[in-house]
Amino acid sequence: MALLQRRVIGLVQRMLASAGGGCGCDCDEPSREEEHADAVAPVTANGNGGGAAGVSLRGEKLRDSQVSVEKDAGRSLAAGATPLLFTAIFVSVALNVALAHLLHRYAPSHPAASPDRQRDTCVHQPDTSRQSEDGAAAPVGELKYRSASAPSTGKPAVTADSVINLDHGDPTMFEAFWRETGDAAEIVIPGWQTMSYFSDVSNVCWFLEPGFDQQVRRLHRTVGNAAVDGYHVLVGTGSTQLFMAALYALSPPNAGEPMSVVSTAPYYSSYPAVTDFLRSGLFRWGGDANSFEGESYIELVCSPNNPDGAIREAALSSDAGKAVHDLAYYWPQYTPITRRADHDIMLFTVSKSTGHAGTRIGWALVKDREVARRMTKFVELNTIGVSKDSQLRAAKVLKAVSDGYDDNEEDDEYSSSGARRHRLFDFGRRKMVERWSMLRAAAAASGIFSLPEETTGHCNFGDETAANNPAFAWLRCDREDVEDCAGFLRGHKILTRCGSQFGADRRYVRVSMLDRDDAFDFFVRRLASLK
Amino acid sequence: MALLQRRVIGLVQRMLASAGGGCGCDCDEPSREEEHADAVAPVTANGNGGGAAGVSLRGEKLRDSQVSVEKDAGRSLAAGATPLLFTAIFVSVALNVALAHLLHRYAPSHPAASPDRQRDTCVHQPDTSRQSEDGAAAPVGELKYRSASAPSTGKPAVTADSVINLDHGDPTMFEAFWRETGDAAEIVIPGWQTMSYFSDVSNVCWFLEPGFDQQVRRLHRTVGNAAVDGYHVLVGTGSTQLFMAALYALSPPNAGEPMSVVSTAPYYSSYPAVTDFLRSGLFRWGGDANSFEGESYIELVCSPNNPDGAIREAALSSDAGKAVHDLAYYWPQYTPITRRADHDIMLFTVSKSTGHAGTRIGWALVKDREVARRMTKFVELNTIGVSKDSQLRAAKVLKAVSDGYDDNEEDDEYSSSGARRHRLFDFGRRKMVERWSMLRAAAAASGIFSLPEETTGHCNFGDETAANNPAFAWLRCDREDVEDCAGFLRGHKILTRCGSQFGADRRYVRVSMLDRDDAFDFFVRRLASLK
Repeated sequence: MALLQRRVIGLVQRMLASAGGGCGCDCDEPSREEEHADAVAPVTANGNGGGAAGVSLRGEKLRDSQVSVEKDAGRSLAAGATPLLFTAIFVSVALNVALAHLLHRYAPSHPAASPDRQRDTCVHQPDTSRQSEDGAAAPVGELKYRSASAPSTGKPAVTADSVINLDHGDPTMFEAFWRETGDAAEIVIPGWQTMSYFSDVSNVCWFLEPGFDQQVRRLHRTVGNAAVDGYHVLVGTGSTQLFMAALYALSPPNAGEPMSVVSTAPYYSSYPAVTDFLRSGLFRWGGDANSFEGESYIELVCSPNNPDGAIREAALSSDAGKAVHDLAYYWPQYTPITRRADHDIMLFTVSKSTGHAGTRIGWALVKDREVARRMTKFVELNTIGVSKDSQLRAAKVLKAVSDGYDDNEEDDEYSSSGARRHRLFDFGRRKMVERWSMLRAAAAASGIFSLPEETTGHCNFGDETAANNPAFAWLRCDREDVEDCAGFLRGHKILTRCGSQFGADRRYVRVSMLDRDDAFDFFVRRLASLK
Repeated sequence: MALLQRRVIGLVQRMLASAGGGCGCDCDEPSREEEHADAVAPVTANGNGGGAAGVSLRGEKLRDSQVSVEKDAGRSLAAGATPLLFTAIFVSVALNVALAHLLHRYAPSHPAASPDRQRDTCVHQPDTSRQSEDGAAAPVGELKYRSASAPSTGKPAVTADSVINLDHGDPTMFEAFWRETGDAAEIVIPGWQTMSYFSDVSNVCWFLEPGFDQQVRRLHRTVGNAAVDGYHVLVGTGSTQLFMAALYALSPPNAGEPMSVVSTAPYYSSYPAVTDFLRSGLFRWGGDANSFEGESYIELVCSPNNPDGAIREAALSSDAGKAVHDLAYYWPQYTPITRRADHDIMLFTVSKSTGHAGTRIGWALVKDREVARRMTKFVELNTIGVSKDSQLRAAKVLKAVSDGYDDNEEDDEYSSSGARRHRLFDFGRRKMVERWSMLRAAAAASGIFSLPEETTGHCNFGDETAANNPAFAWLRCDREDVEDCAGFLRGHKILTRCGSQFGADRRYVRVSMLDRDDAFDFFVRRLASLK
C-alpha cells in the first residue's frame, strides 16, 4: 500500500512537471515531421485567468450550444470559482488520473509516464477528465472500463484549470448540431455489407461508393460553391490523402528533378510536412509561391486560407505550372459563397464542412480524366481504396445537410414532408459569428493581441451580405517582449500552432475556432486576462 | 431515335472489342505502378468451356455456400446451357449496359467507352450484370438508379460466359458466412458519434479506438497465432498503409542512401510497387532477399506467403537488418496455427482474416515504442488517422469471431448464453478445403497445370492435423508452347496476376481462391477444360 501511495504521488508529480507541455510546436522548426523535446514554459499559478476578463462570455451556460450572440460586450464576468475549489478539483482529478494509470491493462509502458512523452507532436497530455457518451464529464478511472468497448469521444473535457488544446482544427463544435438531428444522419451497417474492395468497376475511381458520389454532387448544387458537371468525383482518406494524390498525379514520372510544390505564405503547415516526409523524388517543397522562380511547379491555393482565412487566387501563372485548389473552408458557415468555383482540381473534406473529422473522408473534383486516373492510382497503391463504411456515413451526413435546404422557403422550419428542418450552415454561421465576436472582444480586452480585419461579401447561398468567419484565428501577439507567441500562450496553458510552421513570424499563432463550447469559452476568458 | 440506335450499336461493338481486356497484368513488366495498353488475347468462341470438364463440381447449386465436398471426382458435367440461350442473354445484357451508358448522368466520358480503358490496371471490365443487395443478379439498367443510394455490392455477378476476374484477392467468399450471423456483426452509428480526430490521447496511436484495440488482443489470444502482451497495437487504412509506415519507421532519416527493402521471391507484387511508387529517398526496392548483399536492409517476411502459400522464415540475418512480418494469412482457415508468433513487427488485416476488405482496416503489433511512434507519425502525415467508423465496425466483427469460440466445448453448437454459434474459422476452413480439392481435381483433369504440393501440420487452435489451404493458388502452366500463363488464361477470359509481378517466371500466375462461389465454380470448370 505504501508502494502504491508512492507511485500515485510520483505520477502526480510527473503530471505537474509536464502540465504545460503537450503537443505545442517547437517554434524553431517549421516542419511537423521531426519532433523535439520542447522546453516547457513555466505555468503561472492562476493561468486560468478567469477573474480578469472584461469581456462578455456565456458564463454558466457552457453546454448550451444554442445561445445567441450576446451584444453587451462590456459586461464583466465573475471568476466562477474560488481558489480552494480549484485546488480540490485538481487534486481529486489528478488522483483519478494516477489511479487510471496504475490500472491500465494494456500499454507496456504508459505514454504519460514516459520521458519522451513531450516529443510526440500530436499525442496530447492526458487531461483531467473525459467526456462520456452523453457529453457529461466522467472521471478517467471510471471511463477506463467503459471506453474499452464504447466509441471514443475525442479529446478530454476541460475544466477552468485545464490545458486548452487548440493546436488542431478538431471540429467538435458541430457535435451539438448532429445531436439535434435524431436519426437523419444515422447509419446501420450489417455484417455482410460492402465487403469487397470494389464499389463501382465502371468508374475511374473504382472504390467510390455511388451514393457518396451522388450526395457530393447534390450538396455542391445546393450550396453553389463548386461546379460538378463535367467533373470526376474522387474519394480519399481525408483530403490529405487526395492532396498527396494530386502531387503524385501532377508530377511527371520521368523528370530529372522533383516538381516544386509552392504556396503563398502563410500556408497550411501540413503542406511542407506532407510534401517532404517521404523525400519523394517526384516532388519537393519549394516554399512561398511569391518567391518562386521557374516555369514548372504545383501551386497550392487554399481559399479561404488556412491559417489566416484570406480569400486567395493563384499567385503564379505559367503553361507548365499547375494549381491545386484546397477549398476545405469554402462553405457558408465560414465565408460568403461569392462564386461557383470551377478549377481543375478542387479538394474538400467532411472534417470542415460537416465536422466529421473522425470519419476521414475527403473528396476531389477533377476535370481531367488522366489526372483523375493517376490520383486514383495513388490511393490504390497507398491504401487500396477508402473505407466504404465511412463513405456510406458521409453520404448520409451530406444528404441530411442537403435535405435541410430542399424546397427552401424563407423561415420554413418544417420541410414539405412535415419533418423539422435541421440546417447545418445556419447553425455553423450562427456559432462562428458568435465566436468571432467573443474572440474580438477578448483581444480588445487584453490589449496585446491583434486579429485579421473582418471582411464581408455577398453570399449567393443565403442571398445576403455575410462576413468572413474563418475556422482558425490567426492571432498576433503585439507585446514587444514576446517573440514566440505559441510559447507565451503555452505558458498560460493554451496550445496553439506557431506561426513559423506556416512560413510566417513566430509572433503569430493559429488557433482553432471549432472546438467544443467549454474549451472555446475557457480560451477566450484566459486570452482576455493576458496583459 | 436513329441516332440512339447507332450509339447503342456502337457501344455494343466497343464492348465486344474489349471483352477480353480488363485489368490483366502485362507480363513484360513486373511493376503495377506503370500501366500498359495490353494487347488483348483473342477470346475463343467457347471459352467458357463448361462442357469439356471431367471433374466434380457443384453443378446447379452455385449459390449454396454450405454444400460439402463432393467426392465422386469422376462424374462428368453437363454444359448447362445451349449456345442460343447464351447468345440471347448476352445480347439482352449488352443492350442493358449500352442503355445504362447513355442514361449515365455524371461521367463526362464514360470509362468503358474510352480508348484508354484497358490501361487501368485495377479498373475492371464492366460486366454483364450486377449483384443486387440480396445477392441475386439484376440488370445494370435497373441498378443504375438503385445503386445511386444503395451500398455497393462489389464486382458484378458472373455468368457462364463472363470474364472471371481473380486478379485481386477480393474476399467475397466470406459474405455467405456474415449473412448467417444476423445482427452479431451489425453496427449503428449515430450522426454525432466519433466526430473528433482523436480516439485516445493517452495512447501512442492516438487515433486508435480502444474497443478495436481490445478486440484485436482478444482475438489473438483466442486463436493463439500472435503474442499481444508487451505489444503496441496500431491501426492502419488496411495493412498496406502500415507496411509503408513500417518502411518509414525503420529507415534512418539521415542516411545518405535509401534503405534496401527485400523479400524472398516469389514475393507479394505490391511490395516493390508500394515501396517505389513515390521514389522515396528513405527506402527503395532491393529485390529478392536471397540475392541481397549488404548489412542494412528491411526484409519483408510474408507467412503464409503471398503468392505461393509457403511458410516462411526470415532469409537474412544481421545486426543492422530489420524484419517486418506480414501475417495477413496466418489464420486457421488458411494454415495450421503451429506457434504463437512473436516478431518485432507483425501486420494483419480484416480483409483476409474476416473478409471485410471494403472496411480497409489493418493492424500492426509492434514491440518497440519508438518504432510504434514513428509508424503512428506516418499515418498521421499520410491520412491524419484512420476511419473510426471502420474501426468500430472491425471491432464488432472481431468480437463476433471471438464470441464463436468462447467457452469452446466440442461440437457445442450453442453458446452458454443460448445463442447459436457462428464459427468463422470452421466456415473458412471448410470452404478452403473444398475449393482446393476442386482446384486440384480441375488441374488434374486438364493435365497442363501444376500446383504447389499440399503440406500439413498440427494446428494448436483446432488441436488437429490440418492442411495448408492458401488464399491464392500459385498455378504453373506446363504446356511447352505457353510462356505467358496469364496471357493464355486471359484468352480464356480468366484474369489472374502474372508470375513476373512476383519476381518469378511468367509460366506462373497467382489466382484468388476467395471469390464468390459462382465465380470460383466457373473458374475451375473452365480450367479443367483447357488442354
